[in-house]
Amino acid sequence: MSLDKVDIVEVGPRDGLQNEAATLSLELKTTLINNLTNAGVSHIEAGSFVSARWVPQMADSSEVFTHITRQNEVVYAALTPNLKGAQAAVLAGADELAVFTAASETFNQRNINCSIDESIVRFAPVLQFASQNKLRVRAYVSCVLGCPYEGEIAPSHVREVSEKLLELGCYEVSLGDTIGVGTPGSTRRLLQALQGLSPNQLALHLHDTYGQALANTLVALDFGHRRFDASVAGLGGCPYAPGASGNVATEDLVYMLHGTGLNTGIDLDKLIHAGNVVSRQLGRKSGSKVALARSNISEECR
Amino acid sequence: MSLDKVDIVEVGPRDGLQNEAATLSLELKTTLINNLTNAGVSHIEAGSFVSARWVPQMADSSEVFTHITRQNEVVYAALTPNLKGAQAAVLAGADELAVFTAASETFNQRNINCSIDESIVRFAPVLQFASQNKLRVRAYVSCVLGCPYEGEIAPSHVREVSEKLLELGCYEVSLGDTIGVGTPGSTRRLLQALQGLSPNQLALHLHDTYGQALANTLVALDFGHRRFDASVAGLGGCPYAPGASGNVATEDLVYMLHGTGLNTGIDLDKLIHAGNVVSRQLGRKSGSKVALARSNISEECR
Repeated sequence: MSLDKVDIVEVGPRDGLQNEAATLSLELKTTLINNLTNAGVSHIEAGSFVSARWVPQMADSSEVFTHITRQNEVVYAALTPNLKGAQAAVLAGADELAVFTAASETFNQRNINCSIDESIVRFAPVLQFASQNKLRVRAYVSCVLGCPYEGEIAPSHVREVSEKLLELGCYEVSLGDTIGVGTPGSTRRLLQALQGLSPNQLALHLHDTYGQALANTLVALDFGHRRFDASVAGLGGCPYAPGASGNVATEDLVYMLHGTGLNTGIDLDKLIHAGNVVSRQLGRKSGSKVALARSNISEECR
Repeated sequence: MSLDKVDIVEVGPRDGLQNEAATLSLELKTTLINNLTNAGVSHIEAGSFVSARWVPQMADSSEVFTHITRQNEVVYAALTPNLKGAQAAVLAGADELAVFTAASETFNQRNINCSIDESIVRFAPVLQFASQNKLRVRAYVSCVLGCPYEGEIAPSHVREVSEKLLELGCYEVSLGDTIGVGTPGSTRRLLQALQGLSPNQLALHLHDTYGQALANTLVALDFGHRRFDASVAGLGGCPYAPGASGNVATEDLVYMLHGTGLNTGIDLDKLIHAGNVVSRQLGRKSGSKVALARSNISEECR
């Protein structure tokens, strides 16, 4: 891991779109992912293989995987809650799988109807299947900086869950501030509690619901972390606070990282283009402040 | 200066409102300032004594000062470009004056039609008058992290202008990232160039146009800075990028500071109330993510 390179996992086509009111057509999803690829994004979560009954926005994920124009060096990942989903994802051609649990028992019960330990047990066949297919598996842990039901979550508990997932064979744990309540203070306490685990095995998945995502990212950079999830145009909202922001916008993250001397491999102008196109298609204002500033800046200031 | 106390200068009633499309009535401006006082804000820029021809939103600043309900320990400040404005502000009962120039020659020429040095010469009578009236004078320096016309601004130039203003007798220089382009990288370079000046004499006035304000604040905190300007509900926009954000929202700043173990003396709930009231009156969505999240959070999560 070079200290000046940051890896960004673009989750807009999955985590973003599944939390948007409007559903994009297969064609427009394909356009989004192709535009992200063209912008130099090297890791894109392209779809989700969960029941279409629960997440109708992702019902055509198989088709998405077969329609996109792939670049060899780009990882196109799929969210897969169980073996059935993993099988469908591999059939569709996913390069990588992702499983998800939470650091909050109540959240996990309400979200996927089982305890955290039960969810991890369910992942074992996914990991085994992935290994047979030579695919890596990423794990999401929700609510690492707070839970809508339980409030504060003990950092030691996040560590415990993360270690179990790494022991199970996940190559990385993505630590999700699902409701975006984390501050530089709580982020620091969490990352201190995780010291000893390799920053290579941990990503941060920060939501900007309280406007703290970039400040929290800065804290994580200070701790040596170099892997972050983000969503172009800030796609997705916060299901627990309708009208509020969800995922941190990739454009804003990239702007900050580049301005801080870090390299992402992403072309910011092309990324802004990808975000502006999908925002227009969804009929919403971009959730990226950088995109809004760049797109609306007065002629005389260019 | 205690390390765990941060001083916030609330600029919403002046810098915020003067950049809003709608103009608030005297009654509603008074309500805003009273609500801010009730929230525990200890320093409020309440109005501006500039020509009503240029800034019609501030034409009733004299009346604002006489109508608000004051708390003894709160500073109610006024922006005053020249001696005439300073005299009017003192007559109206302002506790403190503020002058403004820029770190960019082109910006200063276009904004106040004179060179930086000429502007500083014009401030001398304001400082003298303030001193006779035992009032302190604050100085704003615009474009410290970038200019809409010149692009990058040399940190050494910001230092030079700041030193001149302090030598003139200003008690503090508020360093303005007027167009919000600064990143943690450029903020760090600026603050390094300002080392040797007392953090007591410098405030940061960050705009969130590119979403970087809180991350930049975190950098400034690391440098020992404890004085920040902010605007409740993110009032005001960016005149150079219509539709984009302007001042950092006070609610988001306070949320971050409190979450990081720092004290502001501000009651966040009352602050959110003040911001939500004025946003409704202006017919706009709050520019504070914290306000949006707190106000819209699902019942079951409260």
